[in-house]
Amino acid sequence: MSNLKYIKYPEKDLWESLIQRPKLKGSNLQSLCKETFDTIREEGDAALYRLTQEYDQVELETLFLTSTELKECAKQTNPALVLAIHQAYANISAFHKAQIPDSITVETMPGVICKQIYRPIERIGIYVPGGTAPLVSTVLMLAIPALLAGCKEIVLCTPPNKSGQIDPAICYAAQLCGVDTVLKLGGIQAIGAMAVGTPSIKPVGKIVGPGNQYVTAAKTYAQEWGVAIDLPAGPSEVLVITNESSNPYYVAADLLSQAEHGIDSQVVLLSTNESIIQKVCQVIDELSSGLNRLDIIKQSLQHARFILLQSIDDCFEFSNQYAPEHLIIAIDKAGDYVSQVVNAGSVFLGHYTPESVGDYASGTNHTLPTAGYAKNYSGVTIDTFIKKITVQEVSQKGLQLLTPTIEQLAGAEGLEAHALAATIRNLQKKEIR
Amino acid sequence: MSNLKYIKYPEKDLWESLIQRPKLKGSNLQSLCKETFDTIREEGDAALYRLTQEYDQVELETLFLTSTELKECAKQTNPALVLAIHQAYANISAFHKAQIPDSITVETMPGVICKQIYRPIERIGIYVPGGTAPLVSTVLMLAIPALLAGCKEIVLCTPPNKSGQIDPAICYAAQLCGVDTVLKLGGIQAIGAMAVGTPSIKPVGKIVGPGNQYVTAAKTYAQEWGVAIDLPAGPSEVLVITNESSNPYYVAADLLSQAEHGIDSQVVLLSTNESIIQKVCQVIDELSSGLNRLDIIKQSLQHARFILLQSIDDCFEFSNQYAPEHLIIAIDKAGDYVSQVVNAGSVFLGHYTPESVGDYASGTNHTLPTAGYAKNYSGVTIDTFIKKITVQEVSQKGLQLLTPTIEQLAGAEGLEAHALAATIRNLQKKEIR
Repeated sequence: MSNLKYIKYPEKDLWESLIQRPKLKGSNLQSLCKETFDTIREEGDAALYRLTQEYDQVELETLFLTSTELKECAKQTNPALVLAIHQAYANISAFHKAQIPDSITVETMPGVICKQIYRPIERIGIYVPGGTAPLVSTVLMLAIPALLAGCKEIVLCTPPNKSGQIDPAICYAAQLCGVDTVLKLGGIQAIGAMAVGTPSIKPVGKIVGPGNQYVTAAKTYAQEWGVAIDLPAGPSEVLVITNESSNPYYVAADLLSQAEHGIDSQVVLLSTNESIIQKVCQVIDELSSGLNRLDIIKQSLQHARFILLQSIDDCFEFSNQYAPEHLIIAIDKAGDYVSQVVNAGSVFLGHYTPESVGDYASGTNHTLPTAGYAKNYSGVTIDTFIKKITVQEVSQKGLQLLTPTIEQLAGAEGLEAHALAATIRNLQKKEIR
Repeated sequence: MSNLKYIKYPEKDLWESLIQRPKLKGSNLQSLCKETFDTIREEGDAALYRLTQEYDQVELETLFLTSTELKECAKQTNPALVLAIHQAYANISAFHKAQIPDSITVETMPGVICKQIYRPIERIGIYVPGGTAPLVSTVLMLAIPALLAGCKEIVLCTPPNKSGQIDPAICYAAQLCGVDTVLKLGGIQAIGAMAVGTPSIKPVGKIVGPGNQYVTAAKTYAQEWGVAIDLPAGPSEVLVITNESSNPYYVAADLLSQAEHGIDSQVVLLSTNESIIQKVCQVIDELSSGLNRLDIIKQSLQHARFILLQSIDDCFEFSNQYAPEHLIIAIDKAGDYVSQVVNAGSVFLGHYTPESVGDYASGTNHTLPTAGYAKNYSGVTIDTFIKKITVQEVSQKGLQLLTPTIEQLAGAEGLEAHALAATIRNLQKKEIR
């Protein structure tokens, strides 16, 4: 892999071009989404069977996995994997449980009580991509916080394989996390079914989960149907900050683990030390040769960037401008640098925290903002599954205190009835009846 | 107003039709948004001056209010209004300050530390609608939490009046809340300028604030440019739950205060007591006659609904299905019923808590989900202005404990390099170099 892109001390006015992500082939999928959603609305379940036959080349007897089928299928998961699922479940639960907010009460003025309370979104739709491997970790990352948040109904869609089956490990994780309904359904039609509803599928309030460009386009379009989504998803990416203290073997493995995700994944290595960059590039060659996804890795590394910078401060400035989904600070005393992180999805500190701990099992969520969205979006948290509702209760005295303020502001805005609603409550009963 | 729509004990299968909001005239504004954004991108500031002349009929020398102009203009605010602004500021600050989250730290397994930390979104764009009156309260509701969240730059757009001026009260509130830049700019071009940027306007990361259908369409479209938005806005609405304990004068005033917002506002009155409904309808006539916005009120009340139901439980079931932006529980011991609220933007308890306290000054935010979005969206909170970032730090021992889990899950997903990144860190140094 001699063609790795190495950039030495780029001027800051070049950074803007260096933070660009690999461009996907532009294609307007909105009209396909509209067409599919309209078809589902008009034809109901029949459309889903037909589209599944068309896109997944499988003729299903039923889209639904019954709870018996789910349990039967789950039993086939191998015991070592079951153990791993339980360990990941425990850690993800522990971290997300700690995110459940307490309600807030403030008496802003005497007699004026304001509260913030929480309610789960009632019906949640989870999308778990199919493809080459069952993404059992994605089931855990999405269903555990939904369960903890108290969502009443969790619907999971994932495309069936060529024999019309769902992988046992997906079934195992789904039933462990209290998923209510599992549908053998993928792509735009899955998002459409959850957004629009059919006679047998009640529409959900929010759709979460990663997916390819079709799924992402469908999620974006679903918002026009009044459905909320978690965040815009995109190809995965990592940025690693290194210096002379970094271990090139560890760093190379981290870059490879990101590169194997897909040909549009991006890895960025920043360093203040030129020989670390050289060594990492050598080790990448050394480690990658035996990997099963070498083909994908080779293509993905074509748009990797290895950048030598003057200082660690420069590395963080670059990183914040890039706003990586995953940021690995692979240097001594990494924790000292967290205060410099402004834009990132999830951060990995020190020499023993590879990205894969967060992908699977440390407890943090792996559904994170990509493509620079870490500047203005958070990853999936408990908040993704709840609504914050405000409640106020004002006493008669409290309203007396507030009324002049309301009258002035309503007056300025020309809204007389707004003032009246306060004023009338200050009158004696006999004055108004 | 004899044509108020009264519905007595509707069957539950009719509720779905009763929760429908008044339909806006459908019009596809997306192409207009695309065109405007493209023009701004190509022509920069010149496009903004031209569009302002076209839509606001005003030729501006500059779009920017300098800080001197802002201060000068603010001085013209009348002193009683200044006092009111300060009181509202204090209450809104107190309630939103209490929402600033603490960071979270959990040791999910020995040596596996997970944290959630917070960072402000760096640049925020606030839209304050123009129209018949200056919405000074909207400035407070959006800029105060942005300021408290620590956003580095707050840009405010609001359309100029016919003389090219901004109302003094808007200027006063803006400088009080630390707004950095005030632009005399409205409509699609304001949202476009903040999303796309021009030579003199740096694009923002998130755009917040209410607006008409043009502004709402532009905010939705801005998301395709990578900009986040607060929530889909829409015509304002209130649902009031009453029984024999309710005061018809107070309730009528609340309904009028909502109806005066606009002709597409909706008011819904639920009651278990028929004579309260009758009395409220009478009082609406009595109170409305002298109001300045009677015309709007009359049109708005054409799609009001007055519904008699069998029980308070039924009222809450209906309300949760409607998911009102504002919910007033105008009955004795209102606080006892909060547990029944599942879907609502903001809740007002008892006889002395009119909606206008929340619109202006109790401390809660008035930017709330409408049109049933309270089922899956929250109103504006401190969270609107921050990102939650996860951080993990795993010790060598912690990684040893986690590695079997990572290896199993990575194996199931066919991602060998993910496993390698953990495995390699468990090898002796001499084994790998």
